[in-house]
Amino acid sequence: MRWLIWCVGMALGLGFAIGCGGGIESNSAPVSPAPAPASVEVPSGQVVADQPSELVSDEGMWLLNEFPSERLGRRHGFTPSQDWLDELRLASVRLAGGCSGSFVSPGGLVMTNHHCAVKCIQQVSTKRSDYLKDGFVAKRSGEELRCPEVELNQLVEIADVTSKVLGSMRGKAEAAGLESRRVEISKIEKECATSDVFRCDVVSLFHGGRYHLYKYRRYQDVRLVFAPEKAIASFGGDPDNFNFPRYSFDVAFLRVYVDGKAAETPHYLRWSAKGASEGDLTFVSGHPGTTSRMMTVSQLEYARDHRLPFLISWYSEVRGAVREFQKLGTEHQRMSSTTLWGAENSLKALRGRRQALVDAGLIGRKRAEERDLRARVDVDPELKGKYGDAWDGMALAQDVKRGIRDEYEFVEGNSGVWSVLMDYARIIVRGVEEYGKPNGERIRRFSDSNRPAVEQQLYSKAPIFDDFEIMKLTMSLSRMREFLGADHEVVRAVLGKKSPDQVARDVVKGTKLGDVEERRRLLSGGKSGVEVSQDAAVVLARVLEPYARSVRGRYEREVEAVEVRHGERIAAARFAVFGTSVYPDATFSLRLSFGTVQGWDEGGVRVGSFTTVGGLFDRATGSAPFALPGSWVGARGGLDMSTRMNLVTSNDVIGGNSGSPLVNRDREVVGLVFDGNIHSLGGEYVYDGRVNRTVSVHSSVVLEALSKVYGADLLVGEVLGR
Amino acid sequence: MRWLIWCVGMALGLGFAIGCGGGIESNSAPVSPAPAPASVEVPSGQVVADQPSELVSDEGMWLLNEFPSERLGRRHGFTPSQDWLDELRLASVRLAGGCSGSFVSPGGLVMTNHHCAVKCIQQVSTKRSDYLKDGFVAKRSGEELRCPEVELNQLVEIADVTSKVLGSMRGKAEAAGLESRRVEISKIEKECATSDVFRCDVVSLFHGGRYHLYKYRRYQDVRLVFAPEKAIASFGGDPDNFNFPRYSFDVAFLRVYVDGKAAETPHYLRWSAKGASEGDLTFVSGHPGTTSRMMTVSQLEYARDHRLPFLISWYSEVRGAVREFQKLGTEHQRMSSTTLWGAENSLKALRGRRQALVDAGLIGRKRAEERDLRARVDVDPELKGKYGDAWDGMALAQDVKRGIRDEYEFVEGNSGVWSVLMDYARIIVRGVEEYGKPNGERIRRFSDSNRPAVEQQLYSKAPIFDDFEIMKLTMSLSRMREFLGADHEVVRAVLGKKSPDQVARDVVKGTKLGDVEERRRLLSGGKSGVEVSQDAAVVLARVLEPYARSVRGRYEREVEAVEVRHGERIAAARFAVFGTSVYPDATFSLRLSFGTVQGWDEGGVRVGSFTTVGGLFDRATGSAPFALPGSWVGARGGLDMSTRMNLVTSNDVIGGNSGSPLVNRDREVVGLVFDGNIHSLGGEYVYDGRVNRTVSVHSSVVLEALSKVYGADLLVGEVLGR
Repeated sequence: MRWLIWCVGMALGLGFAIGCGGGIESNSAPVSPAPAPASVEVPSGQVVADQPSELVSDEGMWLLNEFPSERLGRRHGFTPSQDWLDELRLASVRLAGGCSGSFVSPGGLVMTNHHCAVKCIQQVSTKRSDYLKDGFVAKRSGEELRCPEVELNQLVEIADVTSKVLGSMRGKAEAAGLESRRVEISKIEKECATSDVFRCDVVSLFHGGRYHLYKYRRYQDVRLVFAPEKAIASFGGDPDNFNFPRYSFDVAFLRVYVDGKAAETPHYLRWSAKGASEGDLTFVSGHPGTTSRMMTVSQLEYARDHRLPFLISWYSEVRGAVREFQKLGTEHQRMSSTTLWGAENSLKALRGRRQALVDAGLIGRKRAEERDLRARVDVDPELKGKYGDAWDGMALAQDVKRGIRDEYEFVEGNSGVWSVLMDYARIIVRGVEEYGKPNGERIRRFSDSNRPAVEQQLYSKAPIFDDFEIMKLTMSLSRMREFLGADHEVVRAVLGKKSPDQVARDVVKGTKLGDVEERRRLLSGGKSGVEVSQDAAVVLARVLEPYARSVRGRYEREVEAVEVRHGERIAAARFAVFGTSVYPDATFSLRLSFGTVQGWDEGGVRVGSFTTVGGLFDRATGSAPFALPGSWVGARGGLDMSTRMNLVTSNDVIGGNSGSPLVNRDREVVGLVFDGNIHSLGGEYVYDGRVNRTVSVHSSVVLEALSKVYGADLLVGEVLGR
Repeated sequence: MRWLIWCVGMALGLGFAIGCGGGIESNSAPVSPAPAPASVEVPSGQVVADQPSELVSDEGMWLLNEFPSERLGRRHGFTPSQDWLDELRLASVRLAGGCSGSFVSPGGLVMTNHHCAVKCIQQVSTKRSDYLKDGFVAKRSGEELRCPEVELNQLVEIADVTSKVLGSMRGKAEAAGLESRRVEISKIEKECATSDVFRCDVVSLFHGGRYHLYKYRRYQDVRLVFAPEKAIASFGGDPDNFNFPRYSFDVAFLRVYVDGKAAETPHYLRWSAKGASEGDLTFVSGHPGTTSRMMTVSQLEYARDHRLPFLISWYSEVRGAVREFQKLGTEHQRMSSTTLWGAENSLKALRGRRQALVDAGLIGRKRAEERDLRARVDVDPELKGKYGDAWDGMALAQDVKRGIRDEYEFVEGNSGVWSVLMDYARIIVRGVEEYGKPNGERIRRFSDSNRPAVEQQLYSKAPIFDDFEIMKLTMSLSRMREFLGADHEVVRAVLGKKSPDQVARDVVKGTKLGDVEERRRLLSGGKSGVEVSQDAAVVLARVLEPYARSVRGRYEREVEAVEVRHGERIAAARFAVFGTSVYPDATFSLRLSFGTVQGWDEGGVRVGSFTTVGGLFDRATGSAPFALPGSWVGARGGLDMSTRMNLVTSNDVIGGNSGSPLVNRDREVVGLVFDGNIHSLGGEYVYDGRVNRTVSVHSSVVLEALSKVYGADLLVGEVLGR
C-alpha cells in the first residue's frame, strides 16, 4: 500500500515514528531540525547543463505553486491554469497519520483508502461490532462514528519565506545561525496560525534550498461514513500487495465536522461519468511522504547496508510475533490485526527498496551521476571552492551515524519501549518540561502550533489492550538489550535486575495512563506532579528522559546538522549546474504528478492497464486473503462483471500518496490511488517510467459496489451530486 | 555459540540445512556435487610471491596430515611430532549435527558442549522430566540415556586421492568429466566403507584443488552422561552470546556404546592439572564448518546483499514467532525451546558476519587483494590464459544465482515446508526413487555409504509436537508464497485454493509419519507403495518432488558447477602465485589451530583473558538469562570463587568447532571451546589476530562444578583416570 511507510509507526503503533507527524522523537513539522549555514544559498541563473535524464518521462512530484504547466503542455498537450491548480489543491486533504484524501462533495465528504482509515475503524469497533471484519455503512449522518485520532489538513495557502529564513541566519556563526533559524521559523508559524483551526508548517524544500510556509485548515472532528470489509479492501492481502493485476476495493469515506455539523466544503471534486480509459492523461494530487532521489552514494550505501536491514529484521520479527499472538484469542486477533498488516506492508515495501539498491545496477548509475556532477563542479573554481568537498563530508556523516544510530533509535526513539502507554508517558514527561519554556526554545513537536495534534494523540479515547502492550514492550526492550548490549548504561537503568518481560508487565500493570483523565491531569499538573509520580510508566519515562535528551542532542549536532549542511550544498551545486527546473524530494506536503493510463512490459509479457470485477471473482479462492466477504458473494448476480476494478497509470507517487484522488484533465475523479506496483518501490531512489506504475481503484467500481453490494444509495447520490 | 551455523537447521529443525550433513537438499558428504573440468589441475612449484598477509599471526585451520610444524616451531618454539598429531586426531570426534568433541577417558567418555547435545537433551526429556531445565546426571552407566539422533565420527585414516579423482576426469568433456568424477568418488567411498561401522567421505580441499579420503569410525549408539541446567550452560543467554567476559558452563558428557557396552577408546585426552594460564600455547582440534576466506568480491557482495539478509529476516521472524508460541503453554515452551535458542544464535552470528561485510572496510581490503592477485596473473601470459577470466565468470554466476536461489531454497530446500514430518516424507519419496538406482548414479545423500545416517534420522524416536509442526509449516509455506509469489506454479500446486494454515493443518492431521514403523514400512516398501499412498505428507512431498528435482538440476548446472569451476581456477591461480603453504577453507572436517591465551584491546580498553566463578555470581541477577539454577546457588558456599570460569585464546576457529577440546603442548585438556568473541564472526571472511578470540570453558571449573555442584564424583574420577 502506498502508505507513508515511516509513518506506519505512528498510525499503527509499530515503532519507528521518526520523521512522521506523531512519534515522540519527531518534530511534527517537516522542517529538518538542523540549520543551513548562512553562507549557503540557492544560486540562480548559472550555467545550465543538460537536464538530468530523470526529467524525461512522467517523472516528478511537483509543487502546486510551481507546476511545470508548459512542460506538461509540450508532453501531453494540456496546460492547466492556476485556477485549475488552486481548485485541485483546495479539494485535496492530508491525513496526519501518513495518507492523502480528497473532498468529493460540498458537505465535507472525504474519499480515502480503507487502509488509511483502518486504525480508526479498529478503534471504533467493539467486541460486539467488528467493523474491520463486517464493514460499516452509516445509513444517516447520525450514525457516522467519530475517529478518536484522525486529523485532516487542507492546504489553504502557500507563501515563500525563503528570504526570511535565510536572512535570519545571515552573518551568524553556525550554532547561532541554527538557533536564529529555529526562532524565526517558530515565529513565522506562530504568526500564521492565528487560531487552533489552522496549522502552519514551514517546509524545507530542496534540502534547505527553499522554505515555503504552508497554512492548513485543520479538521479534528472526523467521522467514519463508509468502510467495506477488510477482506475486500485488501483482497489478496500481503501476497498481492504492491502487485498488479490487482483486485482490491481499498475505499473508505469519512466526513469532516465543524461544531458538530457536517462541514461545508465548496472546493471538491466531481465524479467522472466514464472513469479512466486507456491512454488518458491522469493527475494525482496528494502527499508523497519522503523520497531519497537526491541522496549521495554514501547515503544510499548507508540505507542499503544499515538502515533497511535494521528495519527489515524488525518488521520480520514483529510479523512472526503478532501472527502467533493472534492465536491467543479472537480479542487478541482483533486488537493486533492492523499492526500485523502494517508490519507486512512495511516489510514488503522495505524489501522492495532494498532490492532496488542491491539489484538493478541502481547504485552504479547513481555513482556515475554523482561522478558527473562532481566533475562539473570541480572544473569551475568557484563552484569547487563552495561545494567541492560536500560529498566527502556527507560520507563522513554516514560513518558517524553508524556509530550513534542504534542509541538514537532505542533511547530517543521508541524502538526500545514500543507501547502506547509508554508513548503517553513520554509525551507527558517531556511535555511538562517543554511547555514550560518559551515557544521558540521548545523541541518543535511541543510548539504551540502543534499542541492540538499532541493533545489529540494524548487524549485519544482509543482502547488499550494490556496483553498486546506487554508483548510489544517485551519485544522492544529485548531488542534494545540486543542492540545496545546488556552492559549499556541505559539498558542497566531500564532493566535493573529484571528481565524485559518483567519490566513490561510491571509497567503495564503499574500505570494508570490507560485512563484519559489521568493523562490530562498529569500533563496539566506540570513538572512538580510528574516529578513525584509513582506511576510505573511515568517512572520509566523519567528514567529514559535524560539519556534521550542527551543522545538526541548528539544526533542532531553530529549527524543531522552535518547531513543537512552538506545536503544543502549538494542541492545548491545541482542548481548551479542544472538550473531550477527540477522538483524537490518529497516532504509529506502537497504535490501534483501527471501520467497516463498504461500497462508495462514485465520480462517480455505485457501487463494490461485494467482489471475487472469478473477477474475478482475468478481470483477468489474462498481462503484468506483471497476470500470474498459474504456481501460480494451475495451481490454477485447483480454486478456487471465488466466493470473496471483497478488500474495502473504512470504517475510518479510514493508512500503517503495513498488515498489521493486520480483525476482527469477536467479534474474529475476517475480513480482512487492505493498502491504502486513492485517496481514503484525503487521509486524511493529513482523513477523508472518504463515500469513504475501507480495502482488505483477505478471510479466505476466504487459506484457499482456502493450501490449494488452495500446499498449505500445515499452516499452514491451525494457523490454524484444528486 | 561456535556451532556450525548452516547446520543449526538440521540440528534444531530450523530450515536451511543446505550444506549440512542432513537436510534433504544437501549431500551429506562434503564434496561439492559439481565437477572440475579436466583441464584444471593444481600447479606445483611455480613462482612463489610474497605470502598473503593472512599468514602472519596465529591464523589457520590446518590439516592434520599437512600441519605446518616448522612454522609453529618458528613462531612458538614447539614442533609437534606426527605421533603427537595422530594421537590428537584419534582423540577428536565429530558430531554429525555440526559440532566437535573429544574422548576424555578410555571408556568411551566424550566431552562436548551442552549446546551440542541440546537436541538430544530435549528429545530424551519428557513432560515429567525436563532435563533442559533441571540438568541430568547419570549416577551409574545404566542410567545413561540414548540420544535418538546423535552420530559420532572418529577420523581413523586420511588418504590423498587427488590423482585418482582428477585422473578420472582427464581428457573428458565437461558433462562427461562431471559424471566420471561422481562415479569415481562413489567408488572410492564404497571401497573404503567396508562395513556400516565406517563412513568414508572424499573431501574436496582448496575448492577442488585436492581430494582427500577421510575414513571415519562411526558411533551411532551415543548416550547422555551429564548435562547441567540450560540456565548455567548458556548463562547470559542471547545477550552474552559471542561476548566476553563470559560465564557459561557450556559442558556436556556423552558416552559411545558398542554392542550395548561402553566402547573402548584407547586414544583419549588426559586432564591438565592446572589448566590454561596467561600466554600458554593452546591447540584446538575440531571441525570448523565452513569459511569463505577464498571468496571473490562478487561472492562476498552476494553474501552481503542477498544471502545474509534473507537468512537474517527469516531467523528474525522465527524468533518473534517462537517466543509467542511459547506462551501457549509449558509443553509448547519445552518443545520449541531449542529452536528458539538456535534462531537467536544464528541471528547473532549472521548479523556479525553481515556487520563484518558492511563495516570494517573488509570488502575494500578483499577488493585490493583480488586486484593484486589478478594483476599478478595478468602479467604472466600462461597464467592469464588459464585463469585470467575466472573472476568475471564467478561474478556472472552470482547474477544467475540471484535469479534462481529463492526457488532452489523453497522448492528443493526445506525453506518452504519447514517441518519434521515433511522432512520424513521427502526422504521417503526421494529415497524410494534413489535407492532403486545404482549407487554411483544417486544423489549423494542417498549413497550406500550415507544410508546409516539417513536411516538414523528417518527412524528417530524423538517426539513430534503437532502444534509446533503446524506453526512451522504455516510460517514456511507463507514465506514460500511471499518470495515466489502467489501465482508461481509450485505455490499454486502446493496451496491450491487453501491458505498456508489450512495446508499445514491438513498435512499434520492427515499423516501417519509420526509413527516410526509407518516410515519404515513406506521406505522399505519402495516406489509402488509410495506412489499410491494417501498419507497427506507423502502426497505433498510427491507434489513437490518433480519441481524440486528440476530446480536442483538447474541450480547444480547453472550455479554450483560454474562456481566450482571458477573457484578451482582461482584456487589454482593462487597456488601458482603464492605456493602451497596455505590452509584450505573449512569443510567440516578435522583441523588443528594454534594460538595462545590472551585478551585483546577493545576500543582502547584491555579485555582480560579469564573470568572466575566469583564473577559469575556477581553477574547473576536472578532473572533469565542471568538467573543461576538452584544447584549453583546452593553450592555457592563451597565453591572456590577464584576458580577460572571461561577464557579467551587467539586460536582461529569457526562454527562447527563447538565442543572442541582446548589442549596444551602436552596434549592435555585445558579447556572446552564453546564460542568466539564478537570479532570472531567476521572470521568467516578474514582472521584478524588483533581481536579475533576463541572462548572456552576453563578445565578447572569443569572439575570444580562436577564435584561441588553436581556431586558427579564418579565422572570426575573417570576424567582424572582414578
